[in-house]
Amino acid sequence: MATPASQSTGRITQRPCFFGNPEKTKSSILSVGRCNNGGGRGGRNIRCANAVNGAVKINGKAANVRSSAAQPVTVDSDDTFRLGKFVEGRLVYRQRFVIRSYEIGPDRTATMETLMNLLQETALNHVMSSGLAGDGFGATRQMSLRKLIWVVTRINIQVDKYSQWGDVVEIDTWVASSGKNGMRRDWIIRDRRTKKMIARATSNWVMMNRETRKLSKIPEEVREEVLPFYLDRNIIAGDNHNPSPNRRIEKLTDATAESVRSGLEPRWSDMDVNQHVNNVKYIGWILESVPLNVLVEYHLTSITLDYRRECRQSQLLESLTTMSSTGMLSPSLCSGDLQSTHLIRQQDDKAEIVRARAEWRCKEHH
Amino acid sequence: MATPASQSTGRITQRPCFFGNPEKTKSSILSVGRCNNGGGRGGRNIRCANAVNGAVKINGKAANVRSSAAQPVTVDSDDTFRLGKFVEGRLVYRQRFVIRSYEIGPDRTATMETLMNLLQETALNHVMSSGLAGDGFGATRQMSLRKLIWVVTRINIQVDKYSQWGDVVEIDTWVASSGKNGMRRDWIIRDRRTKKMIARATSNWVMMNRETRKLSKIPEEVREEVLPFYLDRNIIAGDNHNPSPNRRIEKLTDATAESVRSGLEPRWSDMDVNQHVNNVKYIGWILESVPLNVLVEYHLTSITLDYRRECRQSQLLESLTTMSSTGMLSPSLCSGDLQSTHLIRQQDDKAEIVRARAEWRCKEHH
Repeated sequence: MATPASQSTGRITQRPCFFGNPEKTKSSILSVGRCNNGGGRGGRNIRCANAVNGAVKINGKAANVRSSAAQPVTVDSDDTFRLGKFVEGRLVYRQRFVIRSYEIGPDRTATMETLMNLLQETALNHVMSSGLAGDGFGATRQMSLRKLIWVVTRINIQVDKYSQWGDVVEIDTWVASSGKNGMRRDWIIRDRRTKKMIARATSNWVMMNRETRKLSKIPEEVREEVLPFYLDRNIIAGDNHNPSPNRRIEKLTDATAESVRSGLEPRWSDMDVNQHVNNVKYIGWILESVPLNVLVEYHLTSITLDYRRECRQSQLLESLTTMSSTGMLSPSLCSGDLQSTHLIRQQDDKAEIVRARAEWRCKEHH
Repeated sequence: MATPASQSTGRITQRPCFFGNPEKTKSSILSVGRCNNGGGRGGRNIRCANAVNGAVKINGKAANVRSSAAQPVTVDSDDTFRLGKFVEGRLVYRQRFVIRSYEIGPDRTATMETLMNLLQETALNHVMSSGLAGDGFGATRQMSLRKLIWVVTRINIQVDKYSQWGDVVEIDTWVASSGKNGMRRDWIIRDRRTKKMIARATSNWVMMNRETRKLSKIPEEVREEVLPFYLDRNIIAGDNHNPSPNRRIEKLTDATAESVRSGLEPRWSDMDVNQHVNNVKYIGWILESVPLNVLVEYHLTSITLDYRRECRQSQLLESLTTMSSTGMLSPSLCSGDLQSTHLIRQQDDKAEIVRARAEWRCKEHH
């Protein structure tokens, strides 16, 4: 079926699409974009005000967490409600959350976006609670001296069971080194009532100079700061049954994609601090090109997002999807598992922004 | 500036836009839509499965809350974390929430959508905690016998101060009669630290037969159930300084609207239980036609949403806006207060869905 997805009157005042610069990004741990200071689709300008100061590097903070200089922040009486706590000798940060009515999807369970939001929140509070984050958003001292930030390159989430409205989940998170010049952040989500692990996630980060935008090795001084505080515990290890989340994701093209959804446009309400699209939002755009029957009949059991490049232009996006079994594109044949491959790219120059791979399980069999 | 807001390739598989039926709606207290069982833009069908049972009427529940048969539900140890508590002789329900990193907007404060989500959550938990809601979603017995539900007709929120990430807010809610055949639900949002009221809201509801979709008087048996439990306390009363939130909202037309944003399309990720667009989402669509400089430079200090009719078709929407001062449409002249009028309508037949009126205050003066 081909129908115009969207039309515009001649009078609409277009707004630019903003993608944040990591050092200008407060609330997204996953941001790799670049804040667009000018132009925009509609020729409108907007300041990236308040952005240069309060520099951010969310997982710069993460790397911070266990610097030897770390001091617990002073807590007030509400902090036990607001924040989590350290466990396992301060190597693991643990926080509880309630799944809210507005965080569940059409199938009455927490959405993947909700889970990623909660992972982000836990990571941020991990750093907040560590006492290292001066204004809540700082990198380590040695990183700041060198204008270095962490940027996420990949995240993988595996979900065994989605929570429902009112369920309480308990999230553990910790960081570790990843290869010579990377950092890893892992999470476990447990059902608070059953204590069972219901989801787990891992993410990889590299160091970048926030001005040159070039990747950097981890300087020895930074390594010395953070290394003593890493916890070498890999929650998602590759094996035969569960291939490494790090394996390459095929790049979809117009020739190989089964479904292409164009004209995707960030809404104002998608913007977070500094007019930046939170990278969690990519999940929503990925789902936009997934066949409806898959969304209705299957659970998303795993998704890997592979952030390929900074988005340097404000512009429309396209979402491409290919399901592993084309038979599933016809309605109502829910059985077994499905795999899918996705690409979010810029619409005008087709530059890729995010590759993704997902796995789906039939809800009846779940 | 006129540029195409959105384009579509020929291959996109269109999804229908669903609007929930109140009795099929779990998580939106504000829903007045009708669930579309057929067609849709792309000619796709989707079942409104699991919807007929577990009938909902969110504020049917609200009316339930203080029926004389009410028994407190049994609480487990997590309930103090999950839920709120009754105060003032069980006439007021109070719950705390933490503002999360993903609930703040570009200006680093909780968005209006976030506030409305929290109001919804508090109302739902109010009913959950009352012990009257059998499966968590029931109307009073007398309402159920008559297939009656409550539907929201209007909500007004006034915000003095927006909370920031990590702030704890405390929300009070209660219900009261409204005229002969209506119900009112009010809310107060306080900053937990300062104890100051930072926002307040009121909403009006009428009774409807869920099968005929006709409005109904409140049957005497229902009135007897709910009346003893109402709290006659009006948090937003009209006066000279603060005109009644119930005054009529002008209907915008193509001739009177300064800005029209067409082609607004619900995303899959906008859907809640039963493939229904949560009415809180209308806020996002309203903001889509507000000039960017207003969004950037002003706080939304008040919004009234006037739900005009059930949305009977799955389809594209249009958002119309007129600011009270056209001078403000030119960039960077932030001063004083602004008023705005809005309309969300169906794109094809222009049938109005929501009228809205909003007030804005310059952030520098806030």
